[in-house]
Amino acid sequence: MTQRVVRTAAALVIGNELLSGKIRDANVSELARALRALGIRLQRVVMLPDDIAILAEEVRALSANFDVVFTSGGVGPTHDDVTVEAVARAFQVEVVFDPKLSELLHEVYGERISDAHLLMARVPQGATLCGSPDVEWPTPVMKNVWILPGIPDLFRLKLLTARAWLKGPMPFVSRALFLRVEEPLLKPLLDAVVARHPSVEIGSYPKWFDPTYRTQITFDAETSTSAQAALEDLRSLVAESDVVRVE
Amino acid sequence: MTQRVVRTAAALVIGNELLSGKIRDANVSELARALRALGIRLQRVVMLPDDIAILAEEVRALSANFDVVFTSGGVGPTHDDVTVEAVARAFQVEVVFDPKLSELLHEVYGERISDAHLLMARVPQGATLCGSPDVEWPTPVMKNVWILPGIPDLFRLKLLTARAWLKGPMPFVSRALFLRVEEPLLKPLLDAVVARHPSVEIGSYPKWFDPTYRTQITFDAETSTSAQAALEDLRSLVAESDVVRVE
Repeated sequence: MTQRVVRTAAALVIGNELLSGKIRDANVSELARALRALGIRLQRVVMLPDDIAILAEEVRALSANFDVVFTSGGVGPTHDDVTVEAVARAFQVEVVFDPKLSELLHEVYGERISDAHLLMARVPQGATLCGSPDVEWPTPVMKNVWILPGIPDLFRLKLLTARAWLKGPMPFVSRALFLRVEEPLLKPLLDAVVARHPSVEIGSYPKWFDPTYRTQITFDAETSTSAQAALEDLRSLVAESDVVRVE
Repeated sequence: MTQRVVRTAAALVIGNELLSGKIRDANVSELARALRALGIRLQRVVMLPDDIAILAEEVRALSANFDVVFTSGGVGPTHDDVTVEAVARAFQVEVVFDPKLSELLHEVYGERISDAHLLMARVPQGATLCGSPDVEWPTPVMKNVWILPGIPDLFRLKLLTARAWLKGPMPFVSRALFLRVEEPLLKPLLDAVVARHPSVEIGSYPKWFDPTYRTQITFDAETSTSAQAALEDLRSLVAESDVVRVE
């Protein structure tokens, strides 16, 4: 299996239960970390209700604008599971039953299997099934859209398959400096460092209500040399006694 | 203070740290629950990086399509805090210093105040400040866009102010039925109930890896009578021994 190189990603997180606050999403940060580790940039996340027309329009837009798209949720057998239909509509194809998924469902449910179970074998016509050695159940992928389940344990499992198939141009290097200095006082120093290191993505995160440090400064770059250089540059501008730790 | 009646809401969650998985968002579910309690429908959430042009375009689109919009994050004093500028650009106005916020910052920081601190007094020209008796710090609101901080404790606090100013047409009633029946087996029964109760929003959520029940069915409606009717309808279709609990 050759990994496909992709640069940008988007996610479409689906479910009325998220927008009504009944459930708190757990998948975006998992996806973000997995993509980060591969060197793929997650650039847009959209959370939408279980509405086929709205979802189809979003799938079409995200698929056109990003190298790879991940959907989360809406793949069960009930009336509120509309993701497969929405992805099919986005690409103007039919929903069909995949024989391989059908066979797997028969293996799992045996004689108990019903038409409702078999709804989980639906895929958009033309979708391919991507598998990996460590994950038993294959993932339907329609063009550049990976269709993942919303249940966090299963979503995380499917990310293992995505990691086997995709990679970024190069992994990111992340460094961090934890300082006892308040963010507003750091600002002029930080502005100078940001200007001197344009290739490094520098983030500043104040910590409230924490006695150990005041501000975390992060340095993300494509090489450890450039991340390190920016970190050392800022470090040289603050008192050593204000440095709580370096990561 | 008269509460403004709004029906639909959207959220724009801002920050590279969320899209890189360094931080897991905690604000969407808080906002969702607060709006739900007011009877306002959260219909779209978008998560984007700290990029003024991209954010400005999104603010413009969300503001035009939803009754109220909440932004989360990007309101500190550093280079990666670009929300105020993005909102200003969305409405083609300048960024100005608000005298009231400036005064409050002077009160808090006293003689230690610096230009960087005062950056937190910036607002889009024409923004109003909304306060409430229980929250000391006012929230800038530009047309229908509420500009909230990303730090979860502060975000939650500001929601108290939003709750004082906004309300939905009527609050939702939520009921739930926890069943021992697997989702695929419930499906035909559920389809019948969904068809008979078009005004009730019915959700089905399988619970994996939990021994106490298999599927949670939720019933959301504008009246308790209609939610109750749909719940009782489904309940009459399953064996009483399969009902784990009713909420």
